[in-house]
Amino acid sequence: MIERDNAASHSGGKQPHHFEIQASDPTTRARVGILRTRRGEVRTPAFMPVGTQASVKSLTPDEVRASGTDIILANTYHLMLRPGLAVLEAAGGVQRFMAWDGPILTDSGGFQVFSLAQRREVREEGVTFRSHLDGSLWELTPESAIDLQLGFGSDIIMPLDELVGYGSDDAAQAAAMERTHRWLRRAIERFAARQADVAPDSRPMLFGIAQGGFDPDRRRESASFLRDLPLDGSAIGGLSVGEPKEVMAEMLDASIDGLPPERPRYLMGVGSPEDLWRGVAAGVDMFDCVHPTRVARRGALFTPDGRVDVTAARFRTHFGPVDETCNCPTCTTFSAAYLHHLFRARELLAYRLGTIHNLWFIQREMARIRDAIARGTFVEEMRSFLDRYRPADS
Amino acid sequence: MIERDNAASHSGGKQPHHFEIQASDPTTRARVGILRTRRGEVRTPAFMPVGTQASVKSLTPDEVRASGTDIILANTYHLMLRPGLAVLEAAGGVQRFMAWDGPILTDSGGFQVFSLAQRREVREEGVTFRSHLDGSLWELTPESAIDLQLGFGSDIIMPLDELVGYGSDDAAQAAAMERTHRWLRRAIERFAARQADVAPDSRPMLFGIAQGGFDPDRRRESASFLRDLPLDGSAIGGLSVGEPKEVMAEMLDASIDGLPPERPRYLMGVGSPEDLWRGVAAGVDMFDCVHPTRVARRGALFTPDGRVDVTAARFRTHFGPVDETCNCPTCTTFSAAYLHHLFRARELLAYRLGTIHNLWFIQREMARIRDAIARGTFVEEMRSFLDRYRPADS
Ligand SMILES: [Zn+2]
Ligand SMILES: [Zn+2]
Repeated sequence: MIERDNAASHSGGKQPHHFEIQASDPTTRARVGILRTRRGEVRTPAFMPVGTQASVKSLTPDEVRASGTDIILANTYHLMLRPGLAVLEAAGGVQRFMAWDGPILTDSGGFQVFSLAQRREVREEGVTFRSHLDGSLWELTPESAIDLQLGFGSDIIMPLDELVGYGSDDAAQAAAMERTHRWLRRAIERFAARQADVAPDSRPMLFGIAQGGFDPDRRRESASFLRDLPLDGSAIGGLSVGEPKEVMAEMLDASIDGLPPERPRYLMGVGSPEDLWRGVAAGVDMFDCVHPTRVARRGALFTPDGRVDVTAARFRTHFGPVDETCNCPTCTTFSAAYLHHLFRARELLAYRLGTIHNLWFIQREMARIRDAIARGTFVEEMRSFLDRYRPADS
Repeated sequence: MIERDNAASHSGGKQPHHFEIQASDPTTRARVGILRTRRGEVRTPAFMPVGTQASVKSLTPDEVRASGTDIILANTYHLMLRPGLAVLEAAGGVQRFMAWDGPILTDSGGFQVFSLAQRREVREEGVTFRSHLDGSLWELTPESAIDLQLGFGSDIIMPLDELVGYGSDDAAQAAAMERTHRWLRRAIERFAARQADVAPDSRPMLFGIAQGGFDPDRRRESASFLRDLPLDGSAIGGLSVGEPKEVMAEMLDASIDGLPPERPRYLMGVGSPEDLWRGVAAGVDMFDCVHPTRVARRGALFTPDGRVDVTAARFRTHFGPVDETCNCPTCTTFSAAYLHHLFRARELLAYRLGTIHNLWFIQREMARIRDAIARGTFVEEMRSFLDRYRPADS
């Protein structure tokens, strides 16, 4: 909740009451905590599966919950186009629409506008674009992005930001950051006006987004800009867009240097198993990514030894589970040979069973991460995971 | 089980012990009973969902079971091509492979060879064809069809038959029937030889298939041919292949006239809600059909008032369930508006939620049918269903 009367919550001072850091790792920036939203608690570090169009692809909300998921992400860009704000408002919010009984974080729509929409035009007022579905003309402004997310019933709202790709020139990166900051002020103003009459416990949260392209000084500058603004958390945007891993790690560190440490930190669009461990070590509390569920739908499944391609011939007669150590509904019921067959035969059940496994795997890692931080064994367990895990398909 | 020492089981005399008729409707041929397979009991009249490639599309076996399903059907043609006999034998049978804990009926492969395979050549020995997957050359004979199904671990086995389409000339229909009869004798011989050393309670069942094209006399002749053969049940094949509904009804009646009444009667490939009620009235005990699950995957959902197209605009803001009277997992959790959105957005969850509803609907009708026969209210309930149910999408 925005705490307008409590300067401590947005001045880098004492802990805001909605986010409780329970333990910190002494040698890294990893920390374990609880984020308290109006629709329930989120254990951090948290992985948020992506329900792009109000559905975590192929899964029911019960299955998502059973995986150990506390919060899911949905995309404003997709929801505004289909089913649209009017339907979601009439449904009583996106949670009730999709029958998810926990909190939902929505992005601002900016990322998809910059990556998916056609004939995009960015002005100070906002951005106009054509729908990738039917070519219809739409607009997103800092204000309308807030209004949409409030209409969806989102529990954590993200402001509209401007993105530049990896490799953009310095001037473009600086200009995008400055505009992102101006847009953030407008978002905060709109949010405050819309929430003035809402009881603090019923308010959604508003996060800021730190940008800054691929210059560490600019990353620190943008992160620091968030410190004195009345925000409930900090997102780190514009990473994992094609840059080398070392560049991402450097930018992430620089961003986290600048962010207020008492607020939750959310690294957008990151979610491979190895990046989750490294991100937590860097100080991240929240992640979202389509990666685990997207690769699952082509048969790339996580195991403690690395990612395997279950469509490979060696699984044709592998009658044990894909991952012997996994207690997910897929591994406890079905063999790798059966998954191999379902993927080869393009059976719909394949996508679901693969998604279940990868999501369970990721949430089990998140639980291990939280336990390890609490027990003081985070660094050893991270080394042990990273030594064994081979990211490439084998 | 084939009861070679008990003439009553295959002479039209007293009830065979694997099929118990518990009640019969006084004014139609409807009856309610129990078919006892080596892998569990089947309440009849029964609807068998189709798990073409060892998967009832989009559903887990738990969901199939929860719908009220006692037995599923799998297709020999598909299984022989992929994953193949060797994999299914190594897996310990198709049930264990797909984690279905009940009985499975397999067809002989004939229907798909005649409808799906390429460059088909029928000789007295059997039929050769090219796989629709990769063009590879395959053969099915009456003997190999038995061997395959025994290898799959099927609980109810069907003999290879020859099919002719609706509109074939009289000579072709007669020749196909005669060949089907000769092939049946070879199937019985092979089955007996392979099962000689198997304890009666561990044996799968072998059904015969009555053909006869579209001539009622030939239908009666083919059905009567099954009477004196050592078979556990009777299938009625070659119907629902494009003929008018009245022709199908006439052929079905003629077939049933000729069949031994004490054996279970299985009408192949029929399964729309209205045809199930009519088929039971005609004396059918078992049905299979892809119809309920196939139409579900394009959003055509059953309700007591008829089939509706949930992708139609009128469901966009229908926040109640698709079927107010339904207690399936879809209707008790999700609105028609959400299904509408999922289908429009081509979300994988759409196909699953639609399939769940249609399968639950059908199995609820089967339960109503069985109760109505037992209570003596079958004809009234059939009339009440058919008066209200509109088969076409509305
Ligand atoms: Zn698993
Ligand atoms: Zn339903």
